[in-house]
Order: sequence, then structure tokens, then C-alpha cells
Amino acid sequence: MNTIITIAREFGSGGRYVAQQLAQKLDIPFLDKQLIALAAQETGLSPEFIENTEERQKTTSLLYNLYFSTQNLPLSDQVFIAQSNILKQKAEQGPCVIVGRCADYVLRNFPNVLNVFIYAPIEARILRVQDVYKEKARDMHAYVRKQDKSRAAYYNHFTTEEWGQAHNYDVCMNSELGVDIIVRCLGDIIEEKEASR
Amino acid sequence: MNTIITIAREFGSGGRYVAQQLAQKLDIPFLDKQLIALAAQETGLSPEFIENTEERQKTTSLLYNLYFSTQNLPLSDQVFIAQSNILKQKAEQGPCVIVGRCADYVLRNFPNVLNVFIYAPIEARILRVQDVYKEKARDMHAYVRKQDKSRAAYYNHFTTEEWGQAHNYDVCMNSELGVDIIVRCLGDIIEEKEASR
Repeated sequence: MNTIITIAREFGSGGRYVAQQLAQKLDIPFLDKQLIALAAQETGLSPEFIENTEERQKTTSLLYNLYFSTQNLPLSDQVFIAQSNILKQKAEQGPCVIVGRCADYVLRNFPNVLNVFIYAPIEARILRVQDVYKEKARDMHAYVRKQDKSRAAYYNHFTTEEWGQAHNYDVCMNSELGVDIIVRCLGDIIEEKEASR
Repeated sequence: MNTIITIAREFGSGGRYVAQQLAQKLDIPFLDKQLIALAAQETGLSPEFIENTEERQKTTSLLYNLYFSTQNLPLSDQVFIAQSNILKQKAEQGPCVIVGRCADYVLRNFPNVLNVFIYAPIEARILRVQDVYKEKARDMHAYVRKQDKSRAAYYNHFTTEEWGQAHNYDVCMNSELGVDIIVRCLGDIIEEKEASR
């Protein structure tokens, strides 16, 4: 097989878990932390700093903007460019599952990509964030919405598309359907896609 | 089975064909023209008038607005209400596949609904509209975009949601994946949904 699968996911939707399960089922690399570490080597920034760029995207802080107006390119843009280059290299090497990082947009000119978006109603995501991440924010609703806003801001900043629009992806699924059935469907779709080439 | 499947679809995406194939596979009623005819009986309007409300939604015409400001409720709203009532009745009677008509929104309080959105890149839809509907508009791009705008306006007018947002649906699929694989995946998802209840 040679399909690259990109998985964008709402915070708390379990999309990262879907991606891991799919990579395991297909026996192909799962690119997430590994990608971050590679990008870190290239920019000289710490893996921790890079890992959090997706959740940190803001365009409102005056001080932040003032500081970065003195730089050639904002750090977050430098990280994005470094990551995008690594994504493209990886996608050329063979099939893999990539989580987040606007991979759908970065790899838009690759012919063999399946773009997936995983989401869920906010109530389901709050339960999952409490259950899996043991998050104990006082206002969970506001906490999840804030992460949503950051991811949307990150996507809308670095791409010409709008976060959450079905049109950006080939398949979008509500994770309440169940991880197993989602992974099975994605596997079948990829098999069909490979067979029809 | 008792799942109600609603299928919203972009103009020219083949979503209506997906819905027909799915209804046939599951051996359950396919509600489209039949629904229109029933709504027509209730309002006393012609089936042709009702059939085209989804493609006719506009909120810009001054004359239209002036005329309907003299009525109790605009005709399109009366048709929408009549159709919504029929949709709810049908959904209570048993499983079925419903195309368009904001059915996802109308049936939002029903627990046994699977909401699907079928779309495709505009280039693929132009080819399909030329091939299947033998449409020969001079500017096909503008023609398809106009139908898109009408459907979005209809949905945004009658619901509190935004047309094309993945979050409004349980599954969204680009019809370029292929009708057969989409129908197979939807069938598997429904089977899983029924088994887990």
C-alpha cells in the first residue's frame, strides 16, 4: 500500500487513538511525537515547545505580536515550516498515519492522501477528557472550548481553509460511533482506494 | 432495525443516489418525492412548487419580501413546517432513508438517527451534473455554485446550524471515494449502531 492518512481531530474526540489503532491495523508508521522530535532537531527548539504549538496558537496578544515583529519570522511559523518539510519527506518515503499539524493542507498536492476528521459533541469530549486525561478544570466546558479555539486558530492561520468544514476532508466521523467501527470503515476505504488505483 | 438515516448532499455530489442505494441495501423506505407529495396534499400547493423550495431559497428579493410581509407566514416556511411534521410522522413509523429537507435538524431530538453528509470537489460535481443531468449551462462553475448557495441558504434559514460543518452530521463522505464503498461503510455503521443498543 502507499496511502498517506492524515487525521485531524477535535480536542478530546479520541481522534489520536483512532489514528494509533489504524496505524496498528495497517502496520504502517504512526507520526506524532516522532515528527515533533525530528522538527525539534531541525529548528534547535525544545520538543516541549514544538509539541504545544498547536494548542498555543493565538493572534491576540499585543506583547507577543510586538516581540515577534522584531523577528524575521514568528517562532510558530518557523516550527510550522520545519514540520511541513518533514511531513513531506515522510509522505514521500511510504504509507503512514499523521495526526494533526494541518497535514491535510501541507500534503494537498500529494495524490495518494486520505484526509480524515474526527470530532464529537462537546459533552462526550468533556467526559473523555475527564476520564482519559484526568483533567480537573473547574469549568470543563470553557476548558474544552478554549482548546477547540486554539486548534481552529492554528488551522485557520496556517491554511487557506476553515477548520471543521467537511469539504477539507475525505471522511469525517463522530467518534461516538465507536473507535472499532471507525477504524474498520477507514481500513475498508483505504483498501478500496488502493485497489482502484 | 429502527435507524432513521438522513442524507444531506451537495448539488451534483451523487448523495441522492447514495441514499437510494442504501435504502435498497437495507430494504427500508426511501423518502424524497413521496414526502413531497404528502406535504403537497397538506398545504394544497402543487408538488412542483414544493419540490423546488430547497433550490429556490433566497432572502434578497425586495418584492418577494414585500409580498410575503403581507402574509401570515411565507409560503416556503409553511411548506417547511408541513414537511417537518410529515418527516416526524414518518420517523416514528419505522426505519427509512430521508434525503435533504434539513432532516438532520428536524429530527434532532430523535435518538435513533444517523446523519450523513455527502459532498465532492466542485470539479467532480460539474462533471457529474453534465453527465447525469445533461446540464448545459454556459458557466458550469457558476451554475453549481449557485445551487450550493441556495441549499446553504435553505439550511441556514431553517436551522440554527451552518451548512457543510462536519459537526452537524455523524458521517461525512466525499463521494469521490465511490458510491459502493460509501454504501458499504454506512451499512456497517448502522449494523454496529443497532447492535450496540
